[in-house]
Amino acid sequence: MPTVFDPMPDTELVLYHAWMSSASRRVRFCLEEKGLPYVGIFVRLLKNEQNTPQYLALNPNGVVPTLLHRGRPIIESTVINEYLEDVYPDTPLRPADASERAAMRVWTYMADMVVIKAFQELNWNRMMGPTASKWSDEELAQKIATTPMPERREQWRRVARQPYTQDEIERAADVLGHVLERMEASLERGPWLAGSVFSLADINMSPYAVRFGELEEHGMFLRDYPRTQAWWARVQARPAFARAKIEPVKFA
Amino acid sequence: MPTVFDPMPDTELVLYHAWMSSASRRVRFCLEEKGLPYVGIFVRLLKNEQNTPQYLALNPNGVVPTLLHRGRPIIESTVINEYLEDVYPDTPLRPADASERAAMRVWTYMADMVVIKAFQELNWNRMMGPTASKWSDEELAQKIATTPMPERREQWRRVARQPYTQDEIERAADVLGHVLERMEASLERGPWLAGSVFSLADINMSPYAVRFGELEEHGMFLRDYPRTQAWWARVQARPAFARAKIEPVKFA
Repeated sequence: MPTVFDPMPDTELVLYHAWMSSASRRVRFCLEEKGLPYVGIFVRLLKNEQNTPQYLALNPNGVVPTLLHRGRPIIESTVINEYLEDVYPDTPLRPADASERAAMRVWTYMADMVVIKAFQELNWNRMMGPTASKWSDEELAQKIATTPMPERREQWRRVARQPYTQDEIERAADVLGHVLERMEASLERGPWLAGSVFSLADINMSPYAVRFGELEEHGMFLRDYPRTQAWWARVQARPAFARAKIEPVKFA
Repeated sequence: MPTVFDPMPDTELVLYHAWMSSASRRVRFCLEEKGLPYVGIFVRLLKNEQNTPQYLALNPNGVVPTLLHRGRPIIESTVINEYLEDVYPDTPLRPADASERAAMRVWTYMADMVVIKAFQELNWNRMMGPTASKWSDEELAQKIATTPMPERREQWRRVARQPYTQDEIERAADVLGHVLERMEASLERGPWLAGSVFSLADINMSPYAVRFGELEEHGMFLRDYPRTQAWWARVQARPAFARAKIEPVKFA
């Protein structure tokens, strides 16, 4: 299995990614829907490979994924998927109708601006805490010193030394409840989040839908959102979904 | 001057906006660059008009701006500007080259994901605190009850009752310093943020560039970022910039 330290494969599309990263999952799903062959390279996040000079030369944010297209790096999963649409317009994943396309972008935007952060606050204590809390002060300082994005540095500090409080966790659950209500309202048109066609909106939200079960302990159940539940069944039934390997997130 | 309560004007493009809102400024700048005539309707934020049932029917997030195109509401400034590009492709503000277009979206994304929040934490205490801290508990409860987005509710609670701490303000300044460094690096190619052509990236960042002076008390000066300083002079020299009325933000 190639790693970030191997020579760059001689292929049109190379994806630097991690299995459990929601942003990586979005791009894998998009590539599979479009039937685009690619070479995947694992970035071992727990070994901090995303913050090595080699990787930072490709992606100055020090996060996965990064797509190389003919050797040229493209970053940010939402931007990568729009780029794939621009460069490979066959099997379109953007609606042709401009107002459905805007609805698609409102959802890709919701995933980026609201949903990612809420899931981090909801469960990073459990997902990352067991590892991060054991770091020595030197290890934490090293982690922070090699992390380029200040917001990300603060997230590491929080999970290692000042875990998210019960108040913050409850607020994150509220945010995700609001998102579920908005999905349910959007899907009144349906059958897909942007309207009549499967799009990057459905792709962007699917790595979070796989985690909706984490809301049950906060009293929210997918069965109470029947349109969203039916949408999620339709997403999971797509052959590309299985190929993209968007599996339940494991806790430490 | 029309307000949110007047009947909808019979025109192709109507913009619900506020002068000082950075997101409104982005859309005004885009409309002016493209030479698209529109009717502007002020939403009086301090009167909470953005959270009235009439406005929420157009924009369920309860924020400005909202564009009506032939009566159909389009929300989120970045999405609105991409929509305007999709519907009115003349005078393009997206680079034709796919990799420059990706660079453009990395910057519109940076403005949305990183810069807005950092400027809020940097100076909302001063901008909103004098008004919000005087709200009675009932007024605050009413404000929160009528605000649809949970993150925004929390921002109101913070500024009214638990102002951002000096630590948070310093971290916000660090984030903005990082953004300045990234701009300076991006502009090595230049002359525009996405590369060879003026684009939605420059438009999205301009309402924050007008505020870079707020970083001086944190020891950061635009003159130390000469490429960014020259870029900002180029942006301000555009005739559409003056028409969009992107003036310095006033403090209470």
